[in-house]
Amino acid sequence: MRYELYYWPEIQGRGEFVRLALEEGGADYVDVARRRGYGTDAMMKFMDGTRVKRPPYAPPFLKAGRLVIAQSALILHYLGPRLRLAPRSEADRLWAHQLQLTIADLVKEIHDTHHPISSALYYEDQRPAAKRYTREFWRHRVPKLLGYFEGVLKNGGGTYVFGRKVSYVDLSLFQIVEGLRYAFPKRMKRFEKKVPRLVKLHAAVAERPRIAAYLQSEQRIAFNEWGIFRAYPELDG
Amino acid sequence: MRYELYYWPEIQGRGEFVRLALEEGGADYVDVARRRGYGTDAMMKFMDGTRVKRPPYAPPFLKAGRLVIAQSALILHYLGPRLRLAPRSEADRLWAHQLQLTIADLVKEIHDTHHPISSALYYEDQRPAAKRYTREFWRHRVPKLLGYFEGVLKNGGGTYVFGRKVSYVDLSLFQIVEGLRYAFPKRMKRFEKKVPRLVKLHAAVAERPRIAAYLQSEQRIAFNEWGIFRAYPELDG
Repeated sequence: MRYELYYWPEIQGRGEFVRLALEEGGADYVDVARRRGYGTDAMMKFMDGTRVKRPPYAPPFLKAGRLVIAQSALILHYLGPRLRLAPRSEADRLWAHQLQLTIADLVKEIHDTHHPISSALYYEDQRPAAKRYTREFWRHRVPKLLGYFEGVLKNGGGTYVFGRKVSYVDLSLFQIVEGLRYAFPKRMKRFEKKVPRLVKLHAAVAERPRIAAYLQSEQRIAFNEWGIFRAYPELDG
Repeated sequence: MRYELYYWPEIQGRGEFVRLALEEGGADYVDVARRRGYGTDAMMKFMDGTRVKRPPYAPPFLKAGRLVIAQSALILHYLGPRLRLAPRSEADRLWAHQLQLTIADLVKEIHDTHHPISSALYYEDQRPAAKRYTREFWRHRVPKLLGYFEGVLKNGGGTYVFGRKVSYVDLSLFQIVEGLRYAFPKRMKRFEKKVPRLVKLHAAVAERPRIAAYLQSEQRIAFNEWGIFRAYPELDG
């Protein structure tokens, strides 16, 4: 099966959680909107309800044969078992999906640190609100959410959420740590001592051969100031 | 199967999307935290990682036999086929889940109209940001998101998303319309002419015998100023 991933070509964004799974799973896939001379036209076509029976609301979405699946957590729920990146039991798979949905909630909050009022406004036009949002985010939300995942790892007792075998949830937690380090280097440095298991998981994922190769390749888009994680020093306290 | 729903007993909140499905599906269930003399203790116990193998991050969560399932959209994805509130094909079920996840994203944005900076702060301490957020929300987000669902109904051609048969997605869209009418009566009145199919869907759901009986019962918690949908006249423009 050759998968087709549809996502904005200039950013990691929410698509990156899917890309990491496709890479670690050794999937045969095309990152459609990044094909030379192709751009985002093919992607926009899918969101036009007059042409597609089940139009997705927004990218990323995955085409798998005749299926079109949107929402990053749902894409991973679908891909997980197929790429051997999901646990085996139903209870564990449901829980993995719940963990990924909680990561998606965290990603939205990370986005809102720089755009708390509206995505339709420039960052510069909501800077005071962004500063205040970010302060509260690091005071309450990061400890609560990353603390939850640290507890999950402590409970599990292994390097990864499900023990020794990596799952798509681990790849996403890697991306969260990586992104927070980029966007908030000072705050994250201070915070990391509270989540040693997450830091260890991040290092373990980074060393996996396929992930290491991907991160060094041109396929990995660099962090930049258009994505979810943005490095605005004034928000880094 | 007797389901156990765990959610805050004083509000509709995210739990209400699950309650509506349990009611329409005629499920045997207990709303655990609302049992007299019981309160939220049993609920908190589940979130304590030292006692539960797969702790949920937050309510609502559902206990189904030995499974514990959190995140409202995932609970509905699980319950849908069991309560005959999901379509039959895999493609449709995946799409229903995607639609529900998009509704969950909308619910978060509705919450943020009154708490754009932080849930840890009082509304009164983020009122200017709330006014600005709400203005942008109604200018850009409501037209885009409700417009998407209106297009889905237009594409489908029936009263409900999947035609003549009601699904959990329809119940949730009912709740969105009902809640926006409560929180933003003036804005919603002006906007509704742009989404006639959603308005019709809302009326059709409200008339379903089980839903109608539930809405009139004491089981249905009234909207109030602790939940997702809050009626602050100053935000209603």
